[in-house]
Amino acid sequence: MKVVVDAFGGDNAPLEVVEGAVLAVSKNKKLTVVLTGDENKIKDILGERNERIEIVDAKDVISNNEAPTLAIRQKKDSSLVRAFDVLKDDDKVVGLVSAGSTGAVLTGAILKIGRIKGISRPALCPILPTIKNDKTVMICDSGANVDCKSEHLLHFAIMASAYSSIMTGQKEPKVALLNNGTEEHKGNELTKETYPLLQKLPINFVGNVEARDVMSGDVDVIVTDGFAGNVLLKSVEGVASGMSKLIKMEAKKNVFSMLGALMMGKFKGLKAKMDINKYGGAPFLGCKKLVVKTHGSANREIVCNTILQVVKLHENKLNEQIEKLVLEMNGEVNAE
Amino acid sequence: MKVVVDAFGGDNAPLEVVEGAVLAVSKNKKLTVVLTGDENKIKDILGERNERIEIVDAKDVISNNEAPTLAIRQKKDSSLVRAFDVLKDDDKVVGLVSAGSTGAVLTGAILKIGRIKGISRPALCPILPTIKNDKTVMICDSGANVDCKSEHLLHFAIMASAYSSIMTGQKEPKVALLNNGTEEHKGNELTKETYPLLQKLPINFVGNVEARDVMSGDVDVIVTDGFAGNVLLKSVEGVASGMSKLIKMEAKKNVFSMLGALMMGKFKGLKAKMDINKYGGAPFLGCKKLVVKTHGSANREIVCNTILQVVKLHENKLNEQIEKLVLEMNGEVNAE
Repeated sequence: MKVVVDAFGGDNAPLEVVEGAVLAVSKNKKLTVVLTGDENKIKDILGERNERIEIVDAKDVISNNEAPTLAIRQKKDSSLVRAFDVLKDDDKVVGLVSAGSTGAVLTGAILKIGRIKGISRPALCPILPTIKNDKTVMICDSGANVDCKSEHLLHFAIMASAYSSIMTGQKEPKVALLNNGTEEHKGNELTKETYPLLQKLPINFVGNVEARDVMSGDVDVIVTDGFAGNVLLKSVEGVASGMSKLIKMEAKKNVFSMLGALMMGKFKGLKAKMDINKYGGAPFLGCKKLVVKTHGSANREIVCNTILQVVKLHENKLNEQIEKLVLEMNGEVNAE
Repeated sequence: MKVVVDAFGGDNAPLEVVEGAVLAVSKNKKLTVVLTGDENKIKDILGERNERIEIVDAKDVISNNEAPTLAIRQKKDSSLVRAFDVLKDDDKVVGLVSAGSTGAVLTGAILKIGRIKGISRPALCPILPTIKNDKTVMICDSGANVDCKSEHLLHFAIMASAYSSIMTGQKEPKVALLNNGTEEHKGNELTKETYPLLQKLPINFVGNVEARDVMSGDVDVIVTDGFAGNVLLKSVEGVASGMSKLIKMEAKKNVFSMLGALMMGKFKGLKAKMDINKYGGAPFLGCKKLVVKTHGSANREIVCNTILQVVKLHENKLNEQIEKLVLEMNGEVNAE
């Protein structure tokens, strides 16, 4: 089994990406990683460590500032486009990992790989920590689809439910609809229309959730349009980082420097707990093959986790589950 | 000058609301507060302290669980409906304060007071703290209008700009559009359509802002539809409170109990900084008379601050400014 990795995507590429790949193949002896990007530079980092590592040369790189569609269409020799070519053409390759431009990864997935039958809009589904020990929550969609109809939200719900089930091991993860109130009648046109349709799906739909309860750990999946999901994800990030800065300033001001140091020590544990990256990457659910975007600033451990996450999703047949669920859904929803 | 206060709205009513009114009249000698609600109970709390305090008897109370429109229409002898009657009928009364049900306050304002000419949708505009010392940011709309057209967002922009100018003393507060990216071409249908129209308004429009930068202190006003605004506001609340809980757990676990206590002490300062309620209430901008919703759990200081906030907005002619701006806007936007 192979996973292809865009070795030149992300702030810490190629070093941390290549090292992440080496780490991943050392942890899973059945795995081969295909790295795309400048062959000489990759070989320099690898040295002798080339067991179950393949390289596909690519001279170009797509940056974060480029218009995604143009970049995917024109930069045919970029590490990302080459990675999509490998994913598409090599049957042994089960998924793709990139820390590069989110827009380019999503565009590449749509243009090069395509959608699972029945899914009109693939969705980006990152994982967030919660205040409950080891409990996480997934946000679907978090920004790939900024204008949605209720049908799209139904697809997000079944895809993320299947994904959560694999990642958390729960048979029936709790799926909630992001809304401006918990009562059934609350919402904008989209959520009001979607609520009763979610009730008919073969998932564990538990009703509305307000943004203030996202981190409670009470639900496993939050379904939302990509605009509100993006606001949610980024505000969680923003407040966590804002509070971090305030706590650091407090610690620095502290006249007892030892106390300040101890506070910082405690705080690092807290920060690790709030780190949304340790869980690996955000899959772009609903593509014919697995595509996972990892954080732009991912280090080798995160790159490794993301590669192993792809393996886990493949072995647990995520896409087959999604295909089955969407067929069931179309049966159920149309049958009313 | 008078302000009418719903003495039976909120979790701490009537005690904290009545005490807040007493505090407010003690701080502003030109101010009279009209309290609505059970006269005997209000008098019991007031005792001898009845200077510049008037009471309008109301036997009923609207709770948070009631359907707003029904409650406003049917509970004519409730403290909130009586307060709206006083606001409407008494020319000396310049504004209303309630800590009661947000939905009922908004509905009452629309049904009983009405909109400023040219404003189609009044909007709720709370204040949030930022990581910059003494800098705040306002979110307009934060939930009163969950389905918006670009015209509504333009109104939110001019109203909140005028409001921010009065509250912060800045001549040209920086107004930004909440979006899923900072680049001009980013957004959903609504924000893409709104962006170029905001550029034509007589305000200091500084472009898009992402949810992660809301607390940066770089902008003064964030314009958004009420659904996304509600997600933003509540996720800020939720993460701040979630992190608070985690910090408290860390502090409790600490074997050096003194260190735990010291951490908690530091943390209380931080919590105070993050407290979105200390700035008073959230005005419902665009109503013919000033209506300000204060937090359900407001104590006497917050009630007092909110009453004095109404006085400040009145003295600085907020509504006259909004009327003027909407006339200018209609001239400018139609003239293209």
